[in-house]
Amino acid sequence: MSVPLARLLITCPDAPGIVAAVSGFLRNHGANITALDQHSTDPEGGRFFLRAEFTTPHLDLGAGALEAAFARVVAEPFEMEWRILYASRRQRLALMVSKVDHALLEILWLWRRGELDAEIPLVVSNHDALREEVERFGVAFHHIPVTRETKPEAEAQTLALYEDAGIDLVVLARYMQILSPAFVGRYPQRILNIHHSFLPAFIGADPYRQAFERGVKVIGATAHYVTDDLDEGPILEQGVARVTHRQSVADLKRLGQTLERDVLARALRWHLEGRVLVHGNKTVVFA
Amino acid sequence: MSVPLARLLITCPDAPGIVAAVSGFLRNHGANITALDQHSTDPEGGRFFLRAEFTTPHLDLGAGALEAAFARVVAEPFEMEWRILYASRRQRLALMVSKVDHALLEILWLWRRGELDAEIPLVVSNHDALREEVERFGVAFHHIPVTRETKPEAEAQTLALYEDAGIDLVVLARYMQILSPAFVGRYPQRILNIHHSFLPAFIGADPYRQAFERGVKVIGATAHYVTDDLDEGPILEQGVARVTHRQSVADLKRLGQTLERDVLARALRWHLEGRVLVHGNKTVVFA
Amino acid sequence: MSVPLARLLITCPDAPGIVAAVSGFLRNHGANITALDQHSTDPEGGRFFLRAEFTTPHLDLGAGALEAAFARVVAEPFEMEWRILYASRRQRLALMVSKVDHALLEILWLWRRGELDAEIPLVVSNHDALREEVERFGVAFHHIPVTRETKPEAEAQTLALYEDAGIDLVVLARYMQILSPAFVGRYPQRILNIHHSFLPAFIGADPYRQAFERGVKVIGATAHYVTDDLDEGPILEQGVARVTHRQSVADLKRLGQTLERDVLARALRWHLEGRVLVHGNKTVVFA
Amino acid sequence: MSVPLARLLITCPDAPGIVAAVSGFLRNHGANITALDQHSTDPEGGRFFLRAEFTTPHLDLGAGALEAAFARVVAEPFEMEWRILYASRRQRLALMVSKVDHALLEILWLWRRGELDAEIPLVVSNHDALREEVERFGVAFHHIPVTRETKPEAEAQTLALYEDAGIDLVVLARYMQILSPAFVGRYPQRILNIHHSFLPAFIGADPYRQAFERGVKVIGATAHYVTDDLDEGPILEQGVARVTHRQSVADLKRLGQTLERDVLARALRWHLEGRVLVHGNKTVVFA
Repeated sequence: MSVPLARLLITCPDAPGIVAAVSGFLRNHGANITALDQHSTDPEGGRFFLRAEFTTPHLDLGAGALEAAFARVVAEPFEMEWRILYASRRQRLALMVSKVDHALLEILWLWRRGELDAEIPLVVSNHDALREEVERFGVAFHHIPVTRETKPEAEAQTLALYEDAGIDLVVLARYMQILSPAFVGRYPQRILNIHHSFLPAFIGADPYRQAFERGVKVIGATAHYVTDDLDEGPILEQGVARVTHRQSVADLKRLGQTLERDVLARALRWHLEGRVLVHGNKTVVFA
Repeated sequence: MSVPLARLLITCPDAPGIVAAVSGFLRNHGANITALDQHSTDPEGGRFFLRAEFTTPHLDLGAGALEAAFARVVAEPFEMEWRILYASRRQRLALMVSKVDHALLEILWLWRRGELDAEIPLVVSNHDALREEVERFGVAFHHIPVTRETKPEAEAQTLALYEDAGIDLVVLARYMQILSPAFVGRYPQRILNIHHSFLPAFIGADPYRQAFERGVKVIGATAHYVTDDLDEGPILEQGVARVTHRQSVADLKRLGQTLERDVLARALRWHLEGRVLVHGNKTVVFA
Repeated sequence: MSVPLARLLITCPDAPGIVAAVSGFLRNHGANITALDQHSTDPEGGRFFLRAEFTTPHLDLGAGALEAAFARVVAEPFEMEWRILYASRRQRLALMVSKVDHALLEILWLWRRGELDAEIPLVVSNHDALREEVERFGVAFHHIPVTRETKPEAEAQTLALYEDAGIDLVVLARYMQILSPAFVGRYPQRILNIHHSFLPAFIGADPYRQAFERGVKVIGATAHYVTDDLDEGPILEQGVARVTHRQSVADLKRLGQTLERDVLARALRWHLEGRVLVHGNKTVVFA
Repeated sequence: MSVPLARLLITCPDAPGIVAAVSGFLRNHGANITALDQHSTDPEGGRFFLRAEFTTPHLDLGAGALEAAFARVVAEPFEMEWRILYASRRQRLALMVSKVDHALLEILWLWRRGELDAEIPLVVSNHDALREEVERFGVAFHHIPVTRETKPEAEAQTLALYEDAGIDLVVLARYMQILSPAFVGRYPQRILNIHHSFLPAFIGADPYRQAFERGVKVIGATAHYVTDDLDEGPILEQGVARVTHRQSVADLKRLGQTLERDVLARALRWHLEGRVLVHGNKTVVFA
């Protein structure tokens, strides 16, 4: 990973010649493609997705000029939506949490080990319970209580913090408040949630109890982008674990913690590496 | 497995002394317990479940006398629901299928290899498509078409066949008709269905298409007992497989076949070995 | 899948510009790339692997001329090893089996359903036990016994059959004889074996007994290409299942059957779709 | 879990009447059995294993008298090896670690959340690197360096610490030193190790590199009791994860961390709850 990298992400109508155009462009400007994935929803007339990872040291243009050239020469003819993520520009995360700490701690712990390529300037919580844990990692902790009355104000305060901190991605690490459409609209496809069930099963509150009462033999956890519809956004990743009649609701919660931690960490890593493209209410994950 | 075996299945209110009473009774009558499982939904005042597997060659009483004694000495004081399954009395299965053959063939194939301890006297289908396949296994094939108008008659005809054949368990190996409450009521907890999704997700028709459209990253299959509520009966077993954005609906169907075959075979084996006890809308599986 | 397809498989030293050269070439000759995967063992000076799936209806050249042009324009400058598989030219399989039938039947059954894109002209066995099963599928069955003395002759007879039948791939579906180096050398990376353990654990005979005696909590199955070193060839796929102290050796064999069937079927499908490239003693699988 | 519990663990030659004798004894002395598992290696003449969990508030005897009576009335006639673990007497753990922190932190973190029913008075390490981490949990950290020359002395020092602290179980949470037979002999079946491979594959050093070089498609982790033979002791639990050609050795290490944490935590919990009985070089796990 010593060579500086960038990732080019593209979505466009499928058409002949896209790979040739993109790879030719990168080649001509001195980039070496180190990974390339593509997906077409339908070889005849579907939607096309591409992710290319390339080295940047020998580029013949600066980022601005390269992007301008790409827009003109490649992106416009193919009607691409696209962006380039430069690994040198680390994404900035805000974590949101209520009282349950396992998902939050997993992320902070991976981050401190250098296993998440991101900055984490701050944590926001509607409770003060995890302040000490968070500050121990050298991360600012903001306690912003939320009640029905104060919610608009609390969200405004939170968004102001994010604005100041230049937040790229919001991670709901078991944050038990529903965000308003206005809030969600500020971070489209950039709010990542971990839901403690195998969606679409057990939407809503207390999914482990729902799973217990239905008597399922497998439980799960789901990482998804937040949209205005609760628990209905595009799914990035899911994990499952077997259970039996012997497990109580408390056992399911305990077993589910491991799932939630793994699934959220995996999805977050994919997002940070630019491996996730959204297609309607679904994702293309070039893992 | 050369020693003749029987399985005693018990459900009753939890109370002190049940295991001592049951194991003492069996001991006193010459049975050797080769396996014993128990489960209590709540150590203080819950429901109690027990399965004991025991050898029968040295019993001091015949089956009738033994059961009468058990009823009087053990079952009545503890208010037990109970039954004894004798391995020497193989259960008799009816398989029901429509056109898709993988679940049916899996069962017939395991059965021919001697891996299912049961008799399979007949298969009933609302189509004639699989006659040749079924008859190749030496099993009678009955084509009983079902339309809205003929359904009551078709069910009556089917039940008459089952009555004649002494059927113990009905297995719906991808049978695409909904059975009437009257039919279901004749085989309570003795109609086993394989549903091609991870219930309670994707209840109803075409679950692989539903899964594709929701964009899940894991698909599943569920074996459950049929009740009057479609896809809502007690779950015996579930299996899952990972999928990605690359899989089409047809791919999910193909991948799901393997799940359906495995999950149904496992659940059926458990049922035949007397490992499944029903508790409300849930199961206790002593696997 | 209605559009005729071909797959281009490439291995070469890593170098800048490969993707641009390959995709540009295909573009210029009227091919539309419908899937493209690449892998580099090391972005700086490693080995490069590429698989491109492309449509053939609008090619401006016939297969021979296209391949000649590709060799000259692209393959030689980059020192590529390469081949093109045309989906219209179905690969021809020979299956080899001893007495245990589950792996063989799985393949024949998938094949009859149209789920394996291949021809299966013949089965060779060192026992006559499965003749009826095989012939039922309309496949020729050749009983070629093998003893220490007759082995060279038996292999010669087998190879002659394969020569006549134009065999592309040999699948050992639980064939319990070791093939000679001479035999293996005739089908390099084209003999696929299913080994009934999680290699490299439990190499050699009776792996389920070995697993039982070691007391492992997970068993497995491995599909690999056969080389001169027993059970040491490149691994295509592995599958696993949990076990407990309750399972006997016979139980492990039974559970393992499902694994063996799944793993072999998956690996075979990948091979047939040109998804497997060999790198030393390892595989790159573009699944 | 509010009712005080004890667990009775038994190993003996199989014989008729064991369950009746044990459950009758407990019943007669006022214990209510809340869980009972048994296993027989062979119904005719094998080895028998039993675990009974029972409530203690209504016992008619104190622990000493109860155990004396049990020994005389039940254990001696059946030639049992047995012990009773009282939940009120929490087991005391020593953790040993070198530099890699994930397995250690997982245990400390679960412990602080109250999810491990044990005391952890101390951590011993041959490096000083993790002192701050450990002390943050309020656990004593002892840095005891080990060289070839100082090993006997270091082990003696360690054993003295354990003696003083009344250690019941030693957990090697990625401790990279081999313990001497003398050390191991002091804690038979009471030293728990996490090995970072799917044993018996990849015994010894750097198993992730071994796995990478062999090209396996599944990696694993194994929790086992330490014996004099390196990585050959009785296995309690194993876990696995799929990998592809894309993963580097560093990726395998990272993915393996999650496995190691899960597998070790699960095995440790089972040990603490008295769910693990050793049978030769294998385990019976009443999970």
